[in-house]
Amino acid sequence: MAGNSFGHLFKITTFGESHGKAIGVIIDGCPPNISIDEAFIQSELDKRKPGQSKITTQRKESDTAQILSGVFEGKSTGTPIAILIPNEDQRSKDYSHIADKYRPSHADYTYQQKYGIRDYRGGGRSSARETAARVAAGAIAKLYLESQGIEIFAHVSAVGTLEAPNLDTTDLSSLLEIRESNIARCADPATANEMIALIDSIRKAGDTIGGKISTVVRGVPVGLGEPVFDKLHADLGKAMLSINAVHGFEYGSGFSGSEMRGSEHNDIFVKAEDQVRTRTNFSGGIQGGISNGMDIMFRTAFKPVATIMRDQETLNKAGDSTTISGKGRHDPCVVSRAIIIVEAMTALVLADHLLRFKAYR
Amino acid sequence: MAGNSFGHLFKITTFGESHGKAIGVIIDGCPPNISIDEAFIQSELDKRKPGQSKITTQRKESDTAQILSGVFEGKSTGTPIAILIPNEDQRSKDYSHIADKYRPSHADYTYQQKYGIRDYRGGGRSSARETAARVAAGAIAKLYLESQGIEIFAHVSAVGTLEAPNLDTTDLSSLLEIRESNIARCADPATANEMIALIDSIRKAGDTIGGKISTVVRGVPVGLGEPVFDKLHADLGKAMLSINAVHGFEYGSGFSGSEMRGSEHNDIFVKAEDQVRTRTNFSGGIQGGISNGMDIMFRTAFKPVATIMRDQETLNKAGDSTTISGKGRHDPCVVSRAIIIVEAMTALVLADHLLRFKAYR
Amino acid sequence: MAGNSFGHLFKITTFGESHGKAIGVIIDGCPPNISIDEAFIQSELDKRKPGQSKITTQRKESDTAQILSGVFEGKSTGTPIAILIPNEDQRSKDYSHIADKYRPSHADYTYQQKYGIRDYRGGGRSSARETAARVAAGAIAKLYLESQGIEIFAHVSAVGTLEAPNLDTTDLSSLLEIRESNIARCADPATANEMIALIDSIRKAGDTIGGKISTVVRGVPVGLGEPVFDKLHADLGKAMLSINAVHGFEYGSGFSGSEMRGSEHNDIFVKAEDQVRTRTNFSGGIQGGISNGMDIMFRTAFKPVATIMRDQETLNKAGDSTTISGKGRHDPCVVSRAIIIVEAMTALVLADHLLRFKAYR
Amino acid sequence: MAGNSFGHLFKITTFGESHGKAIGVIIDGCPPNISIDEAFIQSELDKRKPGQSKITTQRKESDTAQILSGVFEGKSTGTPIAILIPNEDQRSKDYSHIADKYRPSHADYTYQQKYGIRDYRGGGRSSARETAARVAAGAIAKLYLESQGIEIFAHVSAVGTLEAPNLDTTDLSSLLEIRESNIARCADPATANEMIALIDSIRKAGDTIGGKISTVVRGVPVGLGEPVFDKLHADLGKAMLSINAVHGFEYGSGFSGSEMRGSEHNDIFVKAEDQVRTRTNFSGGIQGGISNGMDIMFRTAFKPVATIMRDQETLNKAGDSTTISGKGRHDPCVVSRAIIIVEAMTALVLADHLLRFKAYR
Repeated sequence: MAGNSFGHLFKITTFGESHGKAIGVIIDGCPPNISIDEAFIQSELDKRKPGQSKITTQRKESDTAQILSGVFEGKSTGTPIAILIPNEDQRSKDYSHIADKYRPSHADYTYQQKYGIRDYRGGGRSSARETAARVAAGAIAKLYLESQGIEIFAHVSAVGTLEAPNLDTTDLSSLLEIRESNIARCADPATANEMIALIDSIRKAGDTIGGKISTVVRGVPVGLGEPVFDKLHADLGKAMLSINAVHGFEYGSGFSGSEMRGSEHNDIFVKAEDQVRTRTNFSGGIQGGISNGMDIMFRTAFKPVATIMRDQETLNKAGDSTTISGKGRHDPCVVSRAIIIVEAMTALVLADHLLRFKAYR
Repeated sequence: MAGNSFGHLFKITTFGESHGKAIGVIIDGCPPNISIDEAFIQSELDKRKPGQSKITTQRKESDTAQILSGVFEGKSTGTPIAILIPNEDQRSKDYSHIADKYRPSHADYTYQQKYGIRDYRGGGRSSARETAARVAAGAIAKLYLESQGIEIFAHVSAVGTLEAPNLDTTDLSSLLEIRESNIARCADPATANEMIALIDSIRKAGDTIGGKISTVVRGVPVGLGEPVFDKLHADLGKAMLSINAVHGFEYGSGFSGSEMRGSEHNDIFVKAEDQVRTRTNFSGGIQGGISNGMDIMFRTAFKPVATIMRDQETLNKAGDSTTISGKGRHDPCVVSRAIIIVEAMTALVLADHLLRFKAYR
Repeated sequence: MAGNSFGHLFKITTFGESHGKAIGVIIDGCPPNISIDEAFIQSELDKRKPGQSKITTQRKESDTAQILSGVFEGKSTGTPIAILIPNEDQRSKDYSHIADKYRPSHADYTYQQKYGIRDYRGGGRSSARETAARVAAGAIAKLYLESQGIEIFAHVSAVGTLEAPNLDTTDLSSLLEIRESNIARCADPATANEMIALIDSIRKAGDTIGGKISTVVRGVPVGLGEPVFDKLHADLGKAMLSINAVHGFEYGSGFSGSEMRGSEHNDIFVKAEDQVRTRTNFSGGIQGGISNGMDIMFRTAFKPVATIMRDQETLNKAGDSTTISGKGRHDPCVVSRAIIIVEAMTALVLADHLLRFKAYR
Repeated sequence: MAGNSFGHLFKITTFGESHGKAIGVIIDGCPPNISIDEAFIQSELDKRKPGQSKITTQRKESDTAQILSGVFEGKSTGTPIAILIPNEDQRSKDYSHIADKYRPSHADYTYQQKYGIRDYRGGGRSSARETAARVAAGAIAKLYLESQGIEIFAHVSAVGTLEAPNLDTTDLSSLLEIRESNIARCADPATANEMIALIDSIRKAGDTIGGKISTVVRGVPVGLGEPVFDKLHADLGKAMLSINAVHGFEYGSGFSGSEMRGSEHNDIFVKAEDQVRTRTNFSGGIQGGISNGMDIMFRTAFKPVATIMRDQETLNKAGDSTTISGKGRHDPCVVSRAIIIVEAMTALVLADHLLRFKAYR
């Protein structure tokens, strides 16, 4: 009830503050006999870690994962898998500028009021550093899903008002290759270049900008999702909205679908190569809250990072007006790092629903 | 795990199919000594019921709620409150046109595949009729929240591309009065008239159209929401996405916030009448997943109703191509009835989080 | 969190007070396509109902179950099964003798203090009448388990200090037949006769007496139970202890096992007809919290019924000393009716764990 | 659902195998601003650790706890508290004698069958080493309960058939002092001496013996426990039964209560120093599943340790008969170490129920 667990059958519980000793996660419910590839877990963490490129924060953290339990001779044993990520960048900085001041659009004020105490160093528990634990757990979920023929692909589809064109998603592997070939992590090369230039100019201005991430999930069997409340898209939506800075979620036709008529929006069932398919996919692969075998498609909107390199008006703990100055090394735009968090949370939702599906078979 | 419960401390479990004997709900966790006003519960159900106006379905159902337990001498006792809504419109219709055919963009196909059996009459469990149970439970949650000074207001802010202007939300009671004075349930009278005309023309064309609902919650104390996964907006998002036909959710600045810069998006803290407030409210009343005392604001997008009065291509259970014809009495646009479902789910999320908040005090 | 749900994947939620309109239950998570035999459900309820014989309460309640949802053409659909049991015996009695007085060893005082309000009529929610809902749900669980080859047998093994000898449990069907042939529901005919005489003399003395129920579960596959906290016997223990009047639970060797030495207590593994078996079964069919394929065996102790036909000293709501008089029709000994509740709760635990087991396969 | 979490509002999740890198626990839901005394946590672990005295195993493990998160400047912050206990005794032993053989009355066979894989080193996850994580978490729960005026006391009340007389529990502090003054951890000095002699003789014979632990909880406010399923004693029972080797649980009058008559068993309400009390306490401080303000009293039965220093017949993985030899350093009787696990689990149940109680106030 205190909010640090996600999932039911494939359940994770994360812990850790930005500047404490370590962050980490327990995965409870990973099926036994899954090959646990530690190098893969690390490669996922590397995609999220700070300091990767000129358009991300220059903070350096190696984010090295250690598996403490639940794996024996390279395979999951069905017991809890604990993963520890020690915090390296723990040098004793001067945090006096935020200890008593509330950074605008951060969680300083709400944590202080809710708990009556907060670890203000680097944002404490509210720091996006926590998401490294999700990425590690998501990597385990991906390994499980992969063994079941399910693949997940996300890329940066917009930075500010700059939107990538709709992609042909037939070949997800090629798109992944393109995505990983550019630091914006957009699968459209031309847009990627524009994004990089835009983010760089934003960074130089000491400002930040929002963006959007589009996700495709392929290979999901028909039948995942538990109506009426745990509809597959409802759990995906909650998963995305639990990621720092996310302000919106839509699946299939999404917000623009609300502007359409039924006669254009309905997805007609057809038979293709002996499979039931739909001619269009405004349903985003989910009907009545249950996967229908088509690609699952959704989009997630991120607000601009709240930490800017400018002076801002605010209040201190005593309630008096004061000024707070931008300081430290922060991301001008989070989406190119956040795609791996989006993929991780997607994997966690699907692994959980796949186990729920199996239970009732 | 089968998906029919919502909430943790203020928890509901619903049951019932469109054409079974009854639908209903158990509310487990309503605090004791709350005055349970049965007339209020009925008035909420009346706002959702079919056949209210020319722009809703002409199906007639009285949706009469009976409280079976948990209330003694007009007050909640802390034990489960069961509410029963008998199905009246159970006459033996001819459902042969959908028993073996999959209606496009409905849940017929996915239910059949998931469960291997389905009650096809009127859509069975996938029918939006189930939401009447949510409205009854939501009414109880509203009574509890009202006793704690929290009020909820939703209205239809868009039908198709027709959008209401931004409202001055200072006086929610007046807006509620305007909303209830028109059958579109839009709090802007001029837009309401246009919406009614639009929906009526859509209806005459045998078609349907989507829309959007905007919600404001006032009086929420600072501190509701449990990071990192059960952020208040994540639970609101899941609640909204669990409603039939919802394809998108955004809070505060939402999708448009992803196009902004940090320097314009940050909400500056100020002191007003001895209260900590923010100058703007792009955060939608929630920071770091925790309510900050400002109005909570979000928007929900509904796809067009899938049942249209036209012939459509589809497949039957055997996998052969066939044609399905529109039949029966259906809504051309659900949003004017769905506002009460949106309010109910909002109330359920807030009641649950208020109890979680109290637990850790 | 308010305590009215049991189970996770096969989950029930009960509602209702002794003298309200109805009691009932929602079963959420019954797998689809299970044949739902309504006559069987009723026959189970009939075994629990009051007024069966001279050694039970003479109160008459027919306890007729109505299925409201989740069943279509005789089979479960995978959606919630709601069962309603209307309260017939609702005549307006005089409850003034308990409205303001706390009956000794009843829940009057604790309910009043916990909730600040209570439905005192017939004990309200604390009445064992609630267990009828468990029996109805348990009957559904039994139908599911039967389809998986699992059978459950309980009988009255002790009334007061009168204990049945250890039974040869090779043929559970015959034992069931013997049990149902006598009103004590003891599977040893000689002891049954003594029990009946004992209970009858207790009843005539206006007193009550406790007893014990022994349970055997056969056909459970190896692997049910989720260590470390949800050990199969831990969940069985909680289930039993949640039944009104239960004060103790032991499995396998139980309390007497704590007096043994390891060298006598260890169950030696042997091969029998190509099956792994143990030579003794002090483990009660569960090792490390996981079923090992042997019969699961446990025992449940019931305290004497608190309502006696004698005057007792007590306090009233104001805290003053007063006298309370025995009144009404009550059981001199509950165990002969409680065996069906024990079987129902056992079935619910096993159905839940069987689904959990399947999820991780 | 995989069984490694306990509690709901005060929730713990444990991880770790006997011979992996570390064991540990995440406590999610500890209220903020509780003083976290690390020395106290360590002192609790020291009471459980192996090698304390001649009547416990001679294995040496220091069981040093490290707090990784959730504590800032000595106080809980309301965020998850992760505690790590590295495994020191990890030297590469020869486990070939158990890798392919099933130790009688151990979890080797059931783990192998359930998961299809097991970490056989030292029993892996099924080792009682896991309970060190519970003790660390229980210490946090005790610190919280102490701040609320609740105290917990357990002692060894029986070893084999050797039972301590009923204690006068008026002064729990003195009893605690006596308990800690002898290595049997029995609060009756004469019985303690006999127990030590008995255990020592059992140890010399290469055998093991069971025992019983009695627990008293004082200072619990009226109102804890959530009927109908989460009765306070049902959750205590599950907690106890989840501890390795526990085969039985009883509260209040327990099994012997089932031999009594209502007229002797009923606890008469009386007024004492302006408090509502009961003259006897056969209810064990719990009525209708809810604490009534009297001392909560229960007893837990432990079977004899399965590892004995003798040759035993068994099967190997291939299903062939073989002999297994006792080896290593094991406890002849666990109860004198287990009392601290019993106290820890008791504290976890009460902390959880106290938060649930507060939620509905």
